[in-house]
Amino acid sequence: MPRYNPLVERLAPPPIPSVHAWARAYDGSRGALIDLSQAVPGYPPHADMLKWLGEASASTASTGYGPIEGETALRAAYATHVAGLYGAGFATENIQITSGCNQAFIVAALAVAGAGESVLVTNPFYFNHETTLSMMGVKVELTPCDPENGFLPDVAALKVALHSGIRALALITPNNPTGAVYPPELVAEIFALCREKGVWLLLDETYRDFLPGDGAPHGLFSLPGWEENLIGLYSFSKSFCIPGHRLGAITAGAETIRQIAKIMDNVQICAPRAAQMALTKALPALDDWRMENRAEIARRTEALKTVLGNVEGWEIGAIGAYFAYIRHPFQGVSSEKVAEHLARQAGIVSIPGTYFGEGQDDYLRFAFANADVATIERLEERLKVFAGP
Amino acid sequence: MPRYNPLVERLAPPPIPSVHAWARAYDGSRGALIDLSQAVPGYPPHADMLKWLGEASASTASTGYGPIEGETALRAAYATHVAGLYGAGFATENIQITSGCNQAFIVAALAVAGAGESVLVTNPFYFNHETTLSMMGVKVELTPCDPENGFLPDVAALKVALHSGIRALALITPNNPTGAVYPPELVAEIFALCREKGVWLLLDETYRDFLPGDGAPHGLFSLPGWEENLIGLYSFSKSFCIPGHRLGAITAGAETIRQIAKIMDNVQICAPRAAQMALTKALPALDDWRMENRAEIARRTEALKTVLGNVEGWEIGAIGAYFAYIRHPFQGVSSEKVAEHLARQAGIVSIPGTYFGEGQDDYLRFAFANADVATIERLEERLKVFAGP
Repeated sequence: MPRYNPLVERLAPPPIPSVHAWARAYDGSRGALIDLSQAVPGYPPHADMLKWLGEASASTASTGYGPIEGETALRAAYATHVAGLYGAGFATENIQITSGCNQAFIVAALAVAGAGESVLVTNPFYFNHETTLSMMGVKVELTPCDPENGFLPDVAALKVALHSGIRALALITPNNPTGAVYPPELVAEIFALCREKGVWLLLDETYRDFLPGDGAPHGLFSLPGWEENLIGLYSFSKSFCIPGHRLGAITAGAETIRQIAKIMDNVQICAPRAAQMALTKALPALDDWRMENRAEIARRTEALKTVLGNVEGWEIGAIGAYFAYIRHPFQGVSSEKVAEHLARQAGIVSIPGTYFGEGQDDYLRFAFANADVATIERLEERLKVFAGP
Repeated sequence: MPRYNPLVERLAPPPIPSVHAWARAYDGSRGALIDLSQAVPGYPPHADMLKWLGEASASTASTGYGPIEGETALRAAYATHVAGLYGAGFATENIQITSGCNQAFIVAALAVAGAGESVLVTNPFYFNHETTLSMMGVKVELTPCDPENGFLPDVAALKVALHSGIRALALITPNNPTGAVYPPELVAEIFALCREKGVWLLLDETYRDFLPGDGAPHGLFSLPGWEENLIGLYSFSKSFCIPGHRLGAITAGAETIRQIAKIMDNVQICAPRAAQMALTKALPALDDWRMENRAEIARRTEALKTVLGNVEGWEIGAIGAYFAYIRHPFQGVSSEKVAEHLARQAGIVSIPGTYFGEGQDDYLRFAFANADVATIERLEERLKVFAGP
């Protein structure tokens, strides 16, 4: 039998199905399972969104191939949306629609780095960033986040890590897994470093719609010549509650989009069209609904803070948008063991810190946006009685 | 400005949009444009298909993330379908649902070959196979098809080309671009060679539903141990007329599917769910409709044969399923030039042979399934008066 690609063979199985296996072993004795594993919105899409999805899918207008870069109307609508958000100018040619943000990442990363080249990611990292690069033979280098400083990237360490062999830095804000929101000044400082070193910044802002404040998340897109070093990544899955329809977007310079479109053509020709057509309507129309959800997620954040303030030994390392990065009380025990037992005994499904990088065994990721306030409050009793592995 | 990945930068822009640009320069003087460029069905999906797509998309059942390998019900339905088609046994674990067949190819290819390794493709090849491998740093080697033998692979040459450094052979039957249907005995002979040499066979059968006969396309899946060397690729786009919904499938051994699922998770987590749910209903229900379409495509094949028999200097190199590979009368002129002028002057959009490999300048690909019989008959007059570039 011929062998598989060793770069693929050595990848661990995808983490989400693995933790769901622990959840299935829970006997229900503490009440209904509380699933804080995958980042999925814990409420349904807007009724109009479902209606538009149904209409577009039932129409022959969506059955043929579409433009590789995405539906022109959606690209234009999204360009308008990000222009408003960042206070910067965008045109249709700056936008590539993808089938979700994992796909946005792989096509953007491949546009700037090939096998044998190096990409820098923060530690902890989003596991799919690491596995995506590794399976393509791209070398992954790590730069630390500082647990003493809310898991923000350590700028001094970053300056050293951004050596001449690095092709790109992948950054996520609000962060996955930690939830840390990178202040605009920090993002600006890091981007300035990237430009100085001739490095691409791949800025994943999947969770930006759940930022607490109203200002622009950062000012990078207003800097002259941003197109020469910056690629922005985004997902419609969380904001519109449609991960099953697989839609994301890339914001970049027109020349970068031209390079990315060549990759998209090979990866899947174009993103599915019906959902793109529905989203073209939803993007301007559901602004108020999205603001309400932002407020709801903020209430969940506060509820989780209260719960963890009442439970001894459990501490918040960072929290924001969809995620909290929680220091568990069983130091010295592997985070995989803690997460497994937390799922099997207490019916709380989380992701072990060790899945997100090196030296992360003291932590668990809680994707708390999945659970409503009442459910989050039920965590308190369960954590209190949880005796550990 | 940091550079792009040179493997991506050196790729030509995607071919389909390029030939559409020539079509836009047509002045309409010969009548309506006849688009024989992209392989898309020239008739709409079944009304029930549209209804099921609409229902699934309007439902919250399709909004969340689904299993990486695909909807379990669709995998089971497709396993049953291919079991009937090939007269072989398949289980759900043998199936991976993808977002179209280009994606099926990239994830299957990456599972067996990494950067710096070699994959063998026929010459001419399907251009996305070549660009997909090249952009990942996989070396593409070519093995010739024989124009004197209906563009079937030259087995003697293949024996030499399958050297020890080759990780996989990519084969397409019915072929894209030529339309050549590989006889079952030839496919068996090539597979035996692959097994002898320890090489994976990536067998793309996107167009198998349009084979003229009723028997199994080949007997490979009935051979004991087929899982150790074979990966089958397929697209739902053509049979169900839903390319815009992006669905394809992989048939392989369970261990191969496990490797591929790790890649799928990185490429887009899962294929879009609503179309998967609709297809689960359509796969058994629309059998008769698909048979009618097969008969219709066969009528178009005959119509094109008649037309080309009446036009001097134009010859069929191969024909079958969706495609004809046509020898044009302007030998010595680049096929790109011929195709451009054929689009601009005669309003016939085709793909130049040179896009499909080395030494293909004598040929054009006609994706004739796009056009009904009456439209195909209109080609005769236009080809007769076309004076060339």
